[in-house]
Amino acid sequence: MIKVGIIGYGNLGKGVQTAITHQPDMELFGIFSKRDPKTVDADGAAVYHFDAILDYKDEIDVLIHCGSSEFDLPTQTPKLVKNFNIVDSFDQHAIIDEHIENVGKNALDKTAIVSVGWDPGFFSMTKTVLDSILPNGDTQGFFGPGIAQGPSNVASNVEGVKVARNYSYPNLDNAKKFKNFEEIDPSKNTSKVCYVVLEDGADPQVVEKEIMDIEHYFKGSDTKIEFISQQEYEEKHSSWPQGGRIIRRATTSKNVKHIIELHINLDSNPEFTAANLVAYARACVKMNQRSISGVYTALDVRPSDLSSKSRADLIKEML
Amino acid sequence: MIKVGIIGYGNLGKGVQTAITHQPDMELFGIFSKRDPKTVDADGAAVYHFDAILDYKDEIDVLIHCGSSEFDLPTQTPKLVKNFNIVDSFDQHAIIDEHIENVGKNALDKTAIVSVGWDPGFFSMTKTVLDSILPNGDTQGFFGPGIAQGPSNVASNVEGVKVARNYSYPNLDNAKKFKNFEEIDPSKNTSKVCYVVLEDGADPQVVEKEIMDIEHYFKGSDTKIEFISQQEYEEKHSSWPQGGRIIRRATTSKNVKHIIELHINLDSNPEFTAANLVAYARACVKMNQRSISGVYTALDVRPSDLSSKSRADLIKEML
Repeated sequence: MIKVGIIGYGNLGKGVQTAITHQPDMELFGIFSKRDPKTVDADGAAVYHFDAILDYKDEIDVLIHCGSSEFDLPTQTPKLVKNFNIVDSFDQHAIIDEHIENVGKNALDKTAIVSVGWDPGFFSMTKTVLDSILPNGDTQGFFGPGIAQGPSNVASNVEGVKVARNYSYPNLDNAKKFKNFEEIDPSKNTSKVCYVVLEDGADPQVVEKEIMDIEHYFKGSDTKIEFISQQEYEEKHSSWPQGGRIIRRATTSKNVKHIIELHINLDSNPEFTAANLVAYARACVKMNQRSISGVYTALDVRPSDLSSKSRADLIKEML
Repeated sequence: MIKVGIIGYGNLGKGVQTAITHQPDMELFGIFSKRDPKTVDADGAAVYHFDAILDYKDEIDVLIHCGSSEFDLPTQTPKLVKNFNIVDSFDQHAIIDEHIENVGKNALDKTAIVSVGWDPGFFSMTKTVLDSILPNGDTQGFFGPGIAQGPSNVASNVEGVKVARNYSYPNLDNAKKFKNFEEIDPSKNTSKVCYVVLEDGADPQVVEKEIMDIEHYFKGSDTKIEFISQQEYEEKHSSWPQGGRIIRRATTSKNVKHIIELHINLDSNPEFTAANLVAYARACVKMNQRSISGVYTALDVRPSDLSSKSRADLIKEML
């Protein structure tokens, strides 16, 4: 059995805990939290203080870091990889290269797989395969309808904000035109609305400016900020659905056209991201067992390493 | 530059020749044919007799075998892998395990990637990833509208048949029900019609029985055989479109549902299969350079190995 340690116990950490129960070859070692372990109700799982994590390094096969891409992962994944195999879902697209470099410096004996999830992650992997097979073409992404988790968390951390939810809506007319090999304006593929519940007394103008100034998430985007009441939030925006599609259009010779479309429709974005993290945690352990140490992404992982199934079973069932 | 040898110069071999021209790091060494090389017009490419292939083993980085899955690949891929890295598109799903075993016995220093294409191949890879990430669910495939290449070729080889084209049509009502988590009968996901042009004097009843007796392709299927004239064939069935989709439906916790759908729409099935073969030929060479010899399938290949792009570029563009 692969023993997994979870760092952080928010929506994502809880999703990982559930996802592990669906995997026949994995078990939860425990949860590491910065809160007092006695105050964390982890549904029966062992809870340890994050500061004591090194004490358990010989008992854990892989860590899944469910902390914040903004505050935790940039500093903690590079430190933890000195002693642990580790998987994270770092999602600041523009600076993933820096994160990889920082983690790589310390990934000498252990293995890290970073930026796991659906985008970056599963979508990135599919884009790479399609770009390689069909180089004479282009790919467009259309996100939503649903909530973008990273930006929602980041906006929720702004002073004066009680909670924020950043919605994406796909422009299906653009998608249709793209598939017909017509010209489109890709900046209009996805529209965004961020619903914000303010703390009592917070100034909406100040909050809006603060949110729109957040680098890598909001700055330069044309996100519309809408302020709503706590009641409206609870009634309409308390779950985490997400959807999206990537489309590759390409030609292989004159007038010979191909369209490949990958479409996801998720009731829960954090549970799907968590499910990705758990499968990549397995791959992380398998790769380390084969002495493949260092830092990797979904682009570097063989599909068979994600699976609990034997080679013979995969050949029979999948091919 | 990666030097590629093509074996066989039918639709698939011609597609590979074109696909190589779209890849910046690959070039065609030449085509190997069982026909007299002087009689093969290969659009300017060098043509050699297949029997002399060993003379060129030090000049070729990888072979792409474009011969028949029924007659050529089962015997030739296992022989050729003794001296060459090799990629094939063996598509007799039920006996891929035997083919892998036969190739593996001889793949000591060289690397083979077999059963490349979209199914088996690209679809198999995506199914494996989804099965690993979302184990609590099931996957269904829906093929068409379009022509299934393997069965068409096999039926075209039957005595008394001038040419045959085996069409698949998807049952979109079943697909919709499946995505709604309703019960479906998977045997009705795809319906099949095989259009056959007879040789003069051939007996349609004999031909129909011969086709329907072909193991691994027609036997046990509910394919409908329809006889058409040469003229109708030329007017309606002389190109090779194909389409298909796989859908994974799964839950991650109670009532939390996810749908992932991969949909392809191809103007030319052989050109798309050829494009897959060329990208996997690159991966085959890269893996062999890292001393990863042996026999593999699309399930064992890292997405980044398919690409001509550097690691830094992939991180910037794909993640």
